[in-house]
Amino acid sequence: MALRLTGRLARRTAAPGDRCPIDRTLRVVGNRSAFLLLREVFYGTTRFDDLVRLTGLSEAVAAKRLKELLDHGLLTRTPYRVEGQRTRHEYVLTDAGRDLLPVLLALAQWGREHVAPRTGPVPHHEDCGAEVSVTFCCAQGHHVSQDDLYIHA
Amino acid sequence: MALRLTGRLARRTAAPGDRCPIDRTLRVVGNRSAFLLLREVFYGTTRFDDLVRLTGLSEAVAAKRLKELLDHGLLTRTPYRVEGQRTRHEYVLTDAGRDLLPVLLALAQWGREHVAPRTGPVPHHEDCGAEVSVTFCCAQGHHVSQDDLYIHA
Repeated sequence: MALRLTGRLARRTAAPGDRCPIDRTLRVVGNRSAFLLLREVFYGTTRFDDLVRLTGLSEAVAAKRLKELLDHGLLTRTPYRVEGQRTRHEYVLTDAGRDLLPVLLALAQWGREHVAPRTGPVPHHEDCGAEVSVTFCCAQGHHVSQDDLYIHA
Repeated sequence: MALRLTGRLARRTAAPGDRCPIDRTLRVVGNRSAFLLLREVFYGTTRFDDLVRLTGLSEAVAAKRLKELLDHGLLTRTPYRVEGQRTRHEYVLTDAGRDLLPVLLALAQWGREHVAPRTGPVPHHEDCGAEVSVTFCCAQGHHVSQDDLYIHA
């Protein structure tokens, strides 16, 4: 069943382009390599060599994507230097970058459920240890199922 | 602050490849054009010509992506025929495809918050009309903040 649409969205006749916030996000992080790098930075990896190794990307692709993520304000880069070595950089998430966690955990949830081997890391609640899901919740505090929402523009 | 990792994940030394469910999902829908087509099918668009028009993709790209989405079991395609015209097809989400809604709404939420013009369609709760967010919730029913979860593998 399709989502119910109301307002202008229901009357649309042409591609919304950058009026669509899904598309705007995808223009910033719309490819696999960007998401793999973000995954690793969320996991606490900060150094270029480690990011390359733990994503399995080539150095060229990793460098290009990291530059895009820096330019879009999702990461910051801080120089550091180990005595006797050349200056290197540490990559860390900005607040905007951190706000992408629901996207990453929603991607993970779908992969655990729908793509073999249907396993993988699971988020847990620090306080009670229970497994954490990505869910829908309304401003009134209700849990909302997929069949119980509509989209308004 | 990075996520806290426990278990094997904390000790990883190489790229997890397809042991990572984020990566497995991205290998199925890891590009902008796939997500734009899914958006439109969620919005109730079923016909190829309409999908092309409302995504702004070229016919060639749309056809290639739709084939991938069919092959991966996210969409089904049903033939239909208007009297006097050639047979056409309707594209509809499978249950697996419908389970991608949290990803799409998480992408939309980030785009509304972080990419100008910071507006766009918003999901609402049918029952009470309040705005709906993508959130984290644990199996014990607690709302979980980003700072209050860890990842275990």
